[in-house]
Amino acid sequence: MKAFTYYNPTRIEFGVGKEKNIGKYISEYGVSKVLVVYGSDRVKKSGLFDNVAKSLTEKGINYVELGGVQSNPLLSKVYEGIELAKAKGVEAVLAVGGGSVLDSSKSIATGAVYDGDVWDFFTNKAVANKALKIFDIITLAATGSEMNNFAVVTKDETKEKFSLTATSVAFPTVSVINPELQSTVTKEYLAYSASDIFAHSLDMYLTATYLPEYMAGYVENILKTVMRATEILLKDASNYEARAEFAWAATQALNFTTFCGVENNRYDTHFLEHTLSAEYNIAHGAGLSIIMPAWMKWQKNLLPERFERFATKMFDAKGADAGIEALKQWYSKIGAPVTLSEGNIPEKDIPMLVEKLLVVAKLWGAETFYTQKMITNVLENAR
Amino acid sequence: MKAFTYYNPTRIEFGVGKEKNIGKYISEYGVSKVLVVYGSDRVKKSGLFDNVAKSLTEKGINYVELGGVQSNPLLSKVYEGIELAKAKGVEAVLAVGGGSVLDSSKSIATGAVYDGDVWDFFTNKAVANKALKIFDIITLAATGSEMNNFAVVTKDETKEKFSLTATSVAFPTVSVINPELQSTVTKEYLAYSASDIFAHSLDMYLTATYLPEYMAGYVENILKTVMRATEILLKDASNYEARAEFAWAATQALNFTTFCGVENNRYDTHFLEHTLSAEYNIAHGAGLSIIMPAWMKWQKNLLPERFERFATKMFDAKGADAGIEALKQWYSKIGAPVTLSEGNIPEKDIPMLVEKLLVVAKLWGAETFYTQKMITNVLENAR
Repeated sequence: MKAFTYYNPTRIEFGVGKEKNIGKYISEYGVSKVLVVYGSDRVKKSGLFDNVAKSLTEKGINYVELGGVQSNPLLSKVYEGIELAKAKGVEAVLAVGGGSVLDSSKSIATGAVYDGDVWDFFTNKAVANKALKIFDIITLAATGSEMNNFAVVTKDETKEKFSLTATSVAFPTVSVINPELQSTVTKEYLAYSASDIFAHSLDMYLTATYLPEYMAGYVENILKTVMRATEILLKDASNYEARAEFAWAATQALNFTTFCGVENNRYDTHFLEHTLSAEYNIAHGAGLSIIMPAWMKWQKNLLPERFERFATKMFDAKGADAGIEALKQWYSKIGAPVTLSEGNIPEKDIPMLVEKLLVVAKLWGAETFYTQKMITNVLENAR
Repeated sequence: MKAFTYYNPTRIEFGVGKEKNIGKYISEYGVSKVLVVYGSDRVKKSGLFDNVAKSLTEKGINYVELGGVQSNPLLSKVYEGIELAKAKGVEAVLAVGGGSVLDSSKSIATGAVYDGDVWDFFTNKAVANKALKIFDIITLAATGSEMNNFAVVTKDETKEKFSLTATSVAFPTVSVINPELQSTVTKEYLAYSASDIFAHSLDMYLTATYLPEYMAGYVENILKTVMRATEILLKDASNYEARAEFAWAATQALNFTTFCGVENNRYDTHFLEHTLSAEYNIAHGAGLSIIMPAWMKWQKNLLPERFERFATKMFDAKGADAGIEALKQWYSKIGAPVTLSEGNIPEKDIPMLVEKLLVVAKLWGAETFYTQKMITNVLENAR
């Protein structure tokens, strides 16, 4: 295993009804005023917002609301939240929703205590090292945002979809995971979520030039859990055990446990996908299921043995190509798109997408790896 | 998955040479004076102590020394440490050694800021909710103490070997794991350590009345890693990768990740063993390899399907008995004792041991489960 630092201070409160204790959890940290961030009105219609409001009020915590966060969350909404947080003097941000709501909340929490433009944290101009406390009730299992310090936001005008750079201040203090709250997800979004978790795992597993045996088994166990749970849930959305295991696997896939001791892992499919979902506003997970098999066909030559292991361990299949094909078929089976056209992305746009991706590659300082040839090759594989 | 809270704030610094940064890590938390706790003189002869002292001095951190902690650590030494910590006004405790040194350090750290007797925390009279900061450089992979808030100490006169009850204050702030520092362990102690890690995992895996599929796979991956690494290391003690994976598996086995969502897990073999090692001063891991198969023969009837799974997944064997026998043979193969006589424990002492264990059972409030019949049955199985 290679040298590493592991640190993850997020406290997880997992289980049915735990959202009703959110006021208690927040008050334990001496917070008396929060900004509650959410997405659509569903959070109000479902009664979840009322439960949250009641719990906060019972503990004497005042709150201000910010609704209307959309998927592929926008910087303009983050600015709105920052203004509100400053104007009302809140001490913490409480996200009630999925990854987009939580990512927006992390951005608001860091931006609200920063004199400059929060976008600086997304463009390598500054690192966020102060933040309001962050709490969340996560209603969609996919991004893993509930147990990491990552956030992705899109700038409205330019459609640049970039990642927050923050120290540990952007880890949630407490994350509530109640699998029951996640059971209203549509079959489509469940499939996209499975694809997102796969990408978090496989971006590491299929790129690390050194992967400890322990970690290979660890990640395969996450992937198998996601496959098993997804198949159960597509047939029976009310299966609590499958829902719970899906939720926990999602959290584990991106809470840094998979990175311990691995070497030179990259984030290729996430790099390639963000421009797709920013450009066409498709679901991130849908973009990923299109990109993943296409990218694998390109990547397989770099780490052939890893791809053979993947095929054997995950699908009992022989050889890299068989493994890639099996994954592609599984995505199709669960209803996730696997070609550009299935994602309603015009194939004629490939040259434009390549240009946009080259700009991002440059920003990442990774243009020697993410070349025109590489990007074109992958997108062409997705036809 | 059942409801749970997961919280583990320990920062891990893993890798070759990381102990040379210990002064830097400690200074990041504003600490300027520490008590350095260690065991035998080996830590000085090896040059490790010098490296630590140099690193502390470079960062302007003053230190006081307390050597002489022995395995199955004694309360008298903890008292000595508490007096020293108070007299010198240290702000933190730095453990340099194995689990015994770290457990003593946790006890000192909690006792030094408590007005009463630190033994209160071991006898359910009080919960430790304040502590000096705890840092460690762990030189033996086994107990998992580097990433949890557990500690076990033996009272000199009565040989009571009890566990610390503490809040999260007893988690180490930073734990340094350099697998190279762990490579001087003898083959015997390597086997005992493997047995200890197995017990941490199996105490949960073989008792939880509900075990999520994800968690079963997670624990099996830890166990397989330990088996693979142990066999490599017994042939080649200098194999760094195996040493590193062994170390990381040891940490994962008792950092609360294995408990997430499981139901009604118990600590049977640890309960049964502590009296053995306190009474005869044998290695904890050696006591555990004696107790484990004997206890499994008793426990198998309570969870037959779990034992069948264990046999299949771990040893490709059929049926509970075959799994137990395979584990026993593996223990023998690596050099861990599997009977009382192999551990130099007189079989005639069984009635005395039963009496002592019944007293502990009562203290734990678990006498309806740990009955005379149950304890006798297990110890008889260890003949």
